[in-house]
Amino acid sequence: MKEMEARIQRDGCVRPGNVLKVDTFLNHQLDVELLDHVGAEFYRLYKDAGVNKILTIEASGIAIACMTARYFHVPVVFAKKAKSKNLDGELYTSPVKSFTYGKEYNVTVAQKFLSEEDRVLILDDFLADGKALDGLLDICRQAGAQVVGAGICIEKGFQPGGKRLRDAGVRVESLAIVEEMNDETGEVIFRAQ
Amino acid sequence: MKEMEARIQRDGCVRPGNVLKVDTFLNHQLDVELLDHVGAEFYRLYKDAGVNKILTIEASGIAIACMTARYFHVPVVFAKKAKSKNLDGELYTSPVKSFTYGKEYNVTVAQKFLSEEDRVLILDDFLADGKALDGLLDICRQAGAQVVGAGICIEKGFQPGGKRLRDAGVRVESLAIVEEMNDETGEVIFRAQ
Repeated sequence: MKEMEARIQRDGCVRPGNVLKVDTFLNHQLDVELLDHVGAEFYRLYKDAGVNKILTIEASGIAIACMTARYFHVPVVFAKKAKSKNLDGELYTSPVKSFTYGKEYNVTVAQKFLSEEDRVLILDDFLADGKALDGLLDICRQAGAQVVGAGICIEKGFQPGGKRLRDAGVRVESLAIVEEMNDETGEVIFRAQ
Repeated sequence: MKEMEARIQRDGCVRPGNVLKVDTFLNHQLDVELLDHVGAEFYRLYKDAGVNKILTIEASGIAIACMTARYFHVPVVFAKKAKSKNLDGELYTSPVKSFTYGKEYNVTVAQKFLSEEDRVLILDDFLADGKALDGLLDICRQAGAQVVGAGICIEKGFQPGGKRLRDAGVRVESLAIVEEMNDETGEVIFRAQ
Protein backbone atom coordinates (compact mmCIF):
# COMPACT_ATOMS: atom_id res chain seq x y z
CA MET A 1 0.00 0.00 0.00
CA LYS A 2 1.84 3.01 -1.31
CA GLU A 3 0.08 5.41 1.09
CA MET A 4 1.37 3.48 4.13
CA GLU A 5 4.92 3.37 2.77
CA ALA A 6 4.83 7.08 1.97
CA ARG A 7 3.55 7.90 5.42
CA ILE A 8 6.29 5.86 7.08
CA GLN A 9 8.88 7.62 4.90
CA ARG A 10 7.46 11.01 5.84
CA ASP A 11 6.61 10.61 9.52
CA GLY A 12 8.28 7.43 10.80
CA CYS A 13 11.41 7.64 12.96
CA VAL A 14 14.01 4.92 13.12
CA ARG A 15 15.47 4.44 16.59
CA PRO A 16 18.24 2.19 17.91
CA GLY A 17 17.17 -1.35 18.76
CA ASN A 18 15.08 -1.90 15.60
CA VAL A 19 12.39 0.51 16.79
CA LEU A 20 10.31 2.21 14.11
CA LYS A 21 8.29 4.97 15.72
CA VAL A 22 4.99 5.70 14.00
CA ASP A 23 3.31 7.35 16.95
CA THR A 24 2.17 10.39 14.97
CA PHE A 25 -0.31 8.36 12.93
CA LEU A 26 -0.61 4.70 14.01
CA ASN A 27 -0.18 3.96 17.70
CA HIS A 28 -0.45 7.01 19.92
CA GLN A 29 -1.94 9.71 17.72
CA LEU A 30 -4.20 8.10 15.12
CA ASP A 31 -4.81 9.43 11.63
CA VAL A 32 -8.34 8.19 11.18
CA GLU A 33 -8.44 8.99 7.46
CA LEU A 34 -5.36 6.83 6.89
CA LEU A 35 -6.93 4.08 9.01
CA ASP A 36 -10.04 4.26 6.87
CA HIS A 37 -7.88 3.60 3.81
CA VAL A 38 -6.20 0.74 5.69
CA GLY A 39 -9.62 -0.74 6.35
CA ALA A 40 -10.58 -0.44 2.69
CA GLU A 41 -7.36 -2.17 1.67
CA PHE A 42 -7.82 -5.10 4.09
CA TYR A 43 -11.35 -5.42 2.76
CA ARG A 44 -10.07 -5.54 -0.81
CA LEU A 45 -7.60 -8.27 0.18
CA TYR A 46 -9.97 -10.42 2.24
CA LYS A 47 -13.47 -9.64 0.97
CA ASP A 48 -13.90 -13.12 -0.58
CA ALA A 49 -12.62 -15.02 2.46
CA GLY A 50 -15.94 -15.32 4.27
CA VAL A 51 -14.76 -13.31 7.29
CA ASN A 52 -17.38 -13.16 10.04
CA LYS A 53 -15.19 -11.84 12.87
CA ILE A 54 -12.14 -9.62 13.26
CA LEU A 55 -9.73 -10.43 16.07
CA THR A 56 -7.05 -8.06 17.33
CA ILE A 57 -5.15 -7.26 20.51
CA GLU A 58 -5.28 -4.16 22.63
CA ALA A 59 -4.39 -1.37 22.30
CA SER A 60 -3.30 -0.06 18.89
CA GLY A 61 -4.91 -2.94 17.02
CA ILE A 62 -8.36 -1.79 18.12
CA ALA A 63 -8.31 1.27 15.89
CA ILE A 64 -7.27 -0.72 12.83
CA ALA A 65 -9.81 -3.44 13.57
CA CYS A 66 -12.74 -1.03 13.99
CA MET A 67 -11.97 0.92 10.85
CA THR A 68 -11.72 -2.36 8.92
CA ALA A 69 -14.82 -3.95 10.45
CA ARG A 70 -16.91 -1.09 9.02
CA TYR A 71 -16.23 -2.52 5.57
CA PHE A 72 -16.90 -6.14 6.51
CA HIS A 73 -19.94 -5.43 8.70
CA VAL A 74 -18.70 -7.92 11.28
CA PRO A 75 -17.93 -7.58 15.01
CA VAL A 76 -14.46 -6.97 16.40
CA VAL A 77 -13.11 -8.95 19.34
CA PHE A 78 -10.03 -7.56 21.00
CA ALA A 79 -7.83 -9.81 23.12
CA LYS A 80 -6.82 -8.35 26.47
CA LYS A 81 -3.34 -8.23 27.90
CA ALA A 82 -4.21 -7.72 31.56
CA LYS A 83 -6.59 -9.45 33.89
CA SER A 84 -9.52 -7.15 34.59
CA LYS A 85 -12.60 -7.45 36.77
CA ASN A 86 -14.61 -7.27 33.56
CA LEU A 87 -13.20 -10.58 32.37
CA ASP A 88 -15.02 -13.53 33.80
CA GLY A 89 -16.49 -16.79 32.61
CA GLU A 90 -14.45 -19.26 30.64
CA LEU A 91 -11.37 -17.77 28.99
CA TYR A 92 -8.92 -18.69 26.29
CA THR A 93 -5.41 -17.58 27.22
CA SER A 94 -2.00 -17.80 25.60
CA PRO A 95 1.34 -16.46 26.86
CA VAL A 96 3.11 -13.80 24.75
CA LYS A 97 6.55 -12.31 25.16
CA SER A 98 6.45 -8.62 24.29
CA PHE A 99 9.32 -6.83 22.62
CA THR A 100 7.74 -3.41 23.12
CA TYR A 101 7.01 -3.78 26.81
CA GLY A 102 9.93 -6.06 27.67
CA LYS A 103 7.92 -8.63 29.58
CA GLU A 104 5.65 -11.63 29.21
CA TYR A 105 1.88 -11.33 29.42
CA ASN A 106 -1.18 -13.45 28.73
CA VAL A 107 -3.49 -12.65 25.87
CA THR A 108 -7.02 -13.47 26.90
CA VAL A 109 -10.34 -13.80 25.07
CA ALA A 110 -13.64 -14.82 26.64
CA GLN A 111 -14.66 -18.17 25.19
CA LYS A 112 -18.15 -16.97 24.31
CA PHE A 113 -16.69 -14.69 21.60
CA LEU A 114 -14.89 -17.32 19.51
CA SER A 115 -16.19 -20.67 18.29
CA GLU A 116 -15.91 -23.29 15.58
CA GLU A 117 -18.35 -21.28 13.50
CA ASP A 118 -15.99 -18.33 13.17
CA ARG A 119 -13.89 -17.41 10.15
CA VAL A 120 -11.45 -14.95 11.66
CA LEU A 121 -9.33 -12.18 10.19
CA ILE A 122 -6.56 -11.22 12.62
CA LEU A 123 -5.35 -7.60 12.42
CA ASP A 124 -2.48 -5.79 14.10
CA ASP A 125 -0.28 -2.76 13.64
CA PHE A 126 3.13 -4.48 13.63
CA LEU A 127 4.58 -7.87 12.82
CA ALA A 128 8.18 -8.48 13.90
CA ASP A 129 8.91 -11.70 15.78
CA GLY A 130 5.25 -12.62 15.46
CA LYS A 131 4.76 -13.38 19.14
CA ALA A 132 1.47 -11.51 19.48
CA LEU A 133 0.17 -13.16 16.31
CA ASP A 134 1.23 -16.57 17.67
CA GLY A 135 -0.86 -15.89 20.76
CA LEU A 136 -3.91 -14.92 18.72
CA LEU A 137 -3.52 -17.93 16.42
CA ASP A 138 -3.22 -20.18 19.47
CA ILE A 139 -6.44 -18.76 20.88
CA CYS A 140 -8.25 -19.38 17.57
CA ARG A 141 -6.91 -22.94 17.55
CA GLN A 142 -8.20 -23.47 21.09
CA ALA A 143 -11.60 -22.20 19.96
CA GLY A 144 -11.65 -24.31 16.83
CA ALA A 145 -12.12 -21.13 14.80
CA GLN A 146 -10.73 -20.95 11.29
CA VAL A 147 -8.22 -18.18 10.62
CA VAL A 148 -8.55 -16.88 7.06
CA GLY A 149 -5.41 -14.79 7.44
CA ALA A 150 -3.69 -11.87 9.08
CA GLY A 151 -3.58 -8.23 8.05
CA ILE A 152 -0.63 -6.20 9.27
CA CYS A 153 0.06 -2.52 8.77
CA ILE A 154 3.86 -2.68 9.07
CA GLU A 155 5.93 -5.84 8.90
CA LYS A 156 9.59 -5.78 9.86
CA GLY A 157 10.77 -8.04 7.06
CA PHE A 158 14.23 -8.37 8.60
CA GLN A 159 12.73 -10.08 11.65
CA PRO A 160 11.59 -13.70 11.42
CA GLY A 161 7.85 -13.58 12.20
CA GLY A 162 6.47 -13.06 8.70
CA LYS A 163 8.53 -15.80 7.04
CA ARG A 164 7.89 -18.26 9.84
CA LEU A 165 4.14 -17.75 9.75
CA ARG A 166 3.90 -17.88 5.94
CA ASP A 167 6.02 -21.05 5.92
CA ALA A 168 3.54 -22.49 8.40
CA GLY A 169 0.74 -21.84 5.92
CA VAL A 170 -0.78 -18.68 7.41
CA ARG A 171 -1.88 -16.09 4.87
CA VAL A 172 -0.18 -12.85 5.96
CA GLU A 173 -0.88 -9.60 4.11
CA SER A 174 1.27 -6.67 5.17
CA LEU A 175 0.59 -3.18 3.84
CA ALA A 176 4.25 -2.21 4.13
CA ILE A 177 7.23 -4.55 4.62
CA VAL A 178 10.37 -2.87 5.90
CA GLU A 179 13.37 -4.64 4.39
CA GLU A 180 16.03 -2.51 6.05
CA MET A 181 16.16 0.53 8.27
CA ASN A 182 19.03 2.55 9.61
CA ASP A 183 18.84 4.49 12.83
CA GLU A 184 21.85 6.65 11.91
CA THR A 185 20.62 7.85 8.53
CA GLY A 186 16.90 7.39 9.23
CA GLU A 187 16.61 5.51 5.95
CA VAL A 188 13.79 2.98 5.51
CA ILE A 189 13.78 0.58 2.55
CA PHE A 190 10.65 -1.36 1.67
CA ARG A 191 10.33 -4.76 0.04
CA ALA A 192 8.76 -4.52 -3.40
CA GLN A 193 5.26 -6.07 -3.33
CA MET B 1 -29.48 7.85 23.33
CA LYS B 2 -32.27 5.33 23.25
CA GLU B 3 -30.27 2.81 21.22
CA MET B 4 -27.57 2.64 23.93
CA GLU B 5 -30.13 2.24 26.71
CA ALA B 6 -31.93 -0.48 24.76
CA ARG B 7 -28.69 -2.31 24.11
CA ILE B 8 -27.73 -2.20 27.80
CA GLN B 9 -31.20 -3.52 28.71
CA ARG B 10 -30.88 -6.33 26.20
CA ASP B 11 -27.24 -7.39 26.52
CA GLY B 12 -25.81 -5.82 29.69
CA CYS B 13 -25.28 -7.93 32.81
CA VAL B 14 -25.33 -6.54 36.32
CA ARG B 15 -22.77 -8.16 38.62
CA PRO B 16 -22.05 -7.73 42.32
CA GLY B 17 -19.80 -4.79 43.19
CA ASN B 18 -21.50 -2.29 40.89
CA VAL B 19 -20.16 -3.98 37.77
CA LEU B 20 -22.16 -3.56 34.58
CA LYS B 21 -20.81 -5.95 31.99
CA VAL B 22 -21.21 -4.77 28.41
CA ASP B 23 -18.50 -6.94 26.93
CA THR B 24 -20.70 -8.26 24.11
CA PHE B 25 -20.84 -4.86 22.40
CA LEU B 26 -18.64 -2.20 24.03
CA ASN B 27 -15.41 -3.37 25.62
CA HIS B 28 -14.34 -6.83 24.54
CA GLN B 29 -16.47 -7.64 21.55
CA LEU B 30 -17.30 -4.42 19.70
CA ASP B 31 -20.48 -3.77 17.73
CA VAL B 32 -19.06 -1.43 15.14
CA GLU B 33 -22.47 -0.40 13.81
CA LEU B 34 -23.53 0.70 17.29
CA LEU B 35 -20.21 2.55 17.68
CA ASP B 36 -20.87 4.33 14.41
CA HIS B 37 -24.17 5.57 15.84
CA VAL B 38 -22.33 6.60 19.02
CA GLY B 39 -19.92 8.62 16.90
CA ALA B 40 -22.78 10.31 15.06
CA GLU B 41 -24.42 11.21 18.37
CA PHE B 42 -21.24 12.71 19.87
CA TYR B 43 -20.86 14.68 16.65
CA ARG B 44 -24.41 15.99 16.96
CA LEU B 45 -23.71 17.07 20.54
CA TYR B 46 -20.30 18.68 19.95
CA LYS B 47 -20.24 19.69 16.30
CA ASP B 48 -20.32 23.41 17.11
CA ALA B 49 -17.61 23.25 19.79
CA GLY B 50 -14.62 23.72 17.50
CA VAL B 51 -13.12 20.32 18.34
CA ASN B 52 -9.75 19.76 16.66
CA LYS B 53 -8.61 16.70 18.64
CA ILE B 54 -10.19 13.72 20.36
CA LEU B 55 -8.49 12.38 23.47
CA THR B 56 -9.21 9.01 25.01
CA ILE B 57 -7.49 6.33 27.06
CA GLU B 58 -6.58 2.81 26.05
CA ALA B 59 -8.08 0.34 25.48
CA SER B 60 -11.87 0.46 25.03
CA GLY B 61 -11.93 4.21 24.48
CA ILE B 62 -9.96 3.82 21.26
CA ALA B 63 -12.85 2.23 19.40
CA ILE B 64 -15.28 4.95 20.45
CA ALA B 65 -12.79 7.69 19.66
CA CYS B 66 -12.00 6.40 16.16
CA MET B 67 -15.61 5.94 15.20
CA THR B 68 -16.36 9.47 16.43
CA ALA B 69 -13.30 11.08 14.82
CA ARG B 70 -14.59 9.98 11.41
CA TYR B 71 -17.39 12.52 11.83
CA PHE B 72 -15.18 15.34 13.09
CA HIS B 73 -12.29 14.71 10.67
CA VAL B 74 -9.78 15.24 13.48
CA PRO B 75 -6.99 13.03 14.89
CA VAL B 76 -7.37 10.82 17.93
CA VAL B 77 -4.77 10.74 20.69
CA PHE B 78 -5.02 7.87 23.12
CA ALA B 79 -3.36 8.12 26.51
CA LYS B 80 -1.34 5.09 27.52
CA LYS B 81 -1.55 3.26 30.82
CA ALA B 82 1.82 1.49 30.72
CA LYS B 83 5.31 2.64 29.98
CA SER B 84 6.39 1.26 26.62
CA LYS B 85 9.60 1.52 24.61
CA ASN B 86 7.58 3.41 22.03
CA LEU B 87 7.01 6.29 24.45
CA ASP B 88 9.89 8.69 24.57
CA GLY B 89 10.48 12.41 24.46
CA GLU B 90 8.72 14.73 26.88
CA LEU B 91 5.61 13.26 28.45
CA TYR B 92 2.58 14.48 30.33
CA THR B 93 1.63 12.03 33.06
CA SER B 94 -1.07 11.88 35.70
CA PRO B 95 -1.75 9.14 38.28
CA VAL B 96 -5.10 7.32 38.12
CA LYS B 97 -6.59 4.80 40.50
CA SER B 98 -8.44 2.15 38.53
CA PHE B 99 -11.61 0.52 39.80
CA THR B 100 -11.62 -2.09 37.03
CA TYR B 101 -8.02 -3.22 37.45
CA GLY B 102 -7.74 -2.64 41.19
CA LYS B 103 -4.48 -0.70 41.08
CA GLU B 104 -2.94 2.69 40.39
CA TYR B 105 -1.34 3.53 37.07
CA ASN B 106 -0.06 6.57 35.22
CA VAL B 107 -1.85 7.91 32.18
CA THR B 108 0.71 9.23 29.76
CA VAL B 109 0.56 11.38 26.61
CA ALA B 110 3.57 12.56 24.60
CA GLN B 111 3.77 16.33 24.89
CA LYS B 112 4.03 16.81 21.14
CA PHE B 113 0.42 15.65 20.72
CA LEU B 114 -1.30 18.23 22.96
CA SER B 115 -0.78 21.98 23.04
CA GLU B 116 -2.41 25.31 23.80
CA GLU B 117 -3.86 25.32 20.31
CA ASP B 118 -6.00 22.28 20.94
CA ARG B 119 -9.73 22.18 21.62
CA VAL B 120 -10.18 18.70 22.97
CA LEU B 121 -13.17 16.38 23.19
CA ILE B 122 -12.50 13.61 25.72
CA LEU B 123 -14.27 10.30 25.10
CA ASP B 124 -14.53 7.14 27.16
CA ASP B 125 -16.75 4.11 27.59
CA PHE B 126 -17.60 4.50 31.29
CA LEU B 127 -17.83 7.26 33.87
CA ALA B 128 -18.15 6.15 37.49
CA ASP B 129 -15.83 7.77 40.03
CA GLY B 130 -14.35 9.83 37.23
CA LYS B 131 -10.73 8.97 38.01
CA ALA B 132 -9.70 8.28 34.42
CA LEU B 133 -11.41 11.48 33.29
CA ASP B 134 -9.60 13.41 36.05
CA GLY B 135 -6.31 12.10 34.69
CA LEU B 136 -7.14 13.14 31.12
CA LEU B 137 -8.34 16.58 32.27
CA ASP B 138 -5.14 17.01 34.27
CA ILE B 139 -3.06 16.19 31.20
CA CYS B 140 -5.00 18.74 29.13
CA ARG B 141 -4.44 21.32 31.88
CA GLN B 142 -0.71 20.59 31.85
CA ALA B 143 -0.71 21.08 28.07
CA GLY B 144 -2.74 24.29 28.24
CA ALA B 145 -5.29 22.68 25.91
CA GLN B 146 -8.93 23.66 26.18
CA VAL B 147 -11.37 20.85 26.96
CA VAL B 148 -14.70 21.47 25.23
CA GLY B 149 -16.28 18.58 27.08
CA ALA B 150 -16.47 14.87 27.65
CA GLY B 151 -18.55 12.25 25.87
CA ILE B 152 -19.32 9.08 27.79
CA CYS B 153 -21.17 5.99 26.60
CA ILE B 154 -22.38 4.81 30.01
CA GLU B 155 -22.39 6.89 33.18
CA LYS B 156 -23.05 5.27 36.53
CA GLY B 157 -25.21 8.05 37.91
CA PHE B 158 -25.19 6.54 41.39
CA GLN B 159 -21.44 7.09 41.62
CA PRO B 160 -20.03 10.57 42.19
CA GLY B 161 -17.91 11.29 39.11
CA GLY B 162 -20.53 12.85 36.86
CA LYS B 163 -21.94 15.23 39.45
CA ARG B 164 -18.50 16.26 40.68
CA LEU B 165 -17.23 17.04 37.19
CA ARG B 166 -20.38 18.91 36.13
CA ASP B 167 -20.25 20.92 39.37
CA ALA B 168 -16.67 21.80 38.48
CA GLY B 169 -17.89 23.23 35.17
CA VAL B 170 -16.98 20.40 32.81
CA ARG B 171 -19.53 19.71 30.10
CA VAL B 172 -20.28 15.99 30.36
CA GLU B 173 -22.59 14.33 27.86
CA SER B 174 -23.48 10.71 28.65
CA LEU B 175 -25.41 8.59 26.18
CA ALA B 176 -26.94 6.51 28.98
CA ILE B 177 -26.99 7.31 32.70
CA VAL B 178 -27.67 4.35 34.96
CA GLU B 179 -29.62 5.57 37.97
CA GLU B 180 -29.93 2.21 39.69
CA MET B 181 -29.00 -1.37 38.97
CA ASN B 182 -29.64 -4.57 40.84
CA ASP B 183 -27.37 -7.59 40.59
CA GLU B 184 -30.05 -9.91 41.97
CA THR B 185 -32.85 -9.02 39.57
CA GLY B 186 -30.61 -7.77 36.74
CA GLU B 187 -32.73 -4.63 36.56
CA VAL B 188 -31.19 -1.43 35.18
CA ILE B 189 -33.00 1.89 35.55
CA PHE B 190 -31.90 4.90 33.50
CA ARG B 191 -32.12 8.58 34.37
CA ALA B 192 -34.52 10.42 32.09
CA GLN B 193 -32.55 12.76 29.78
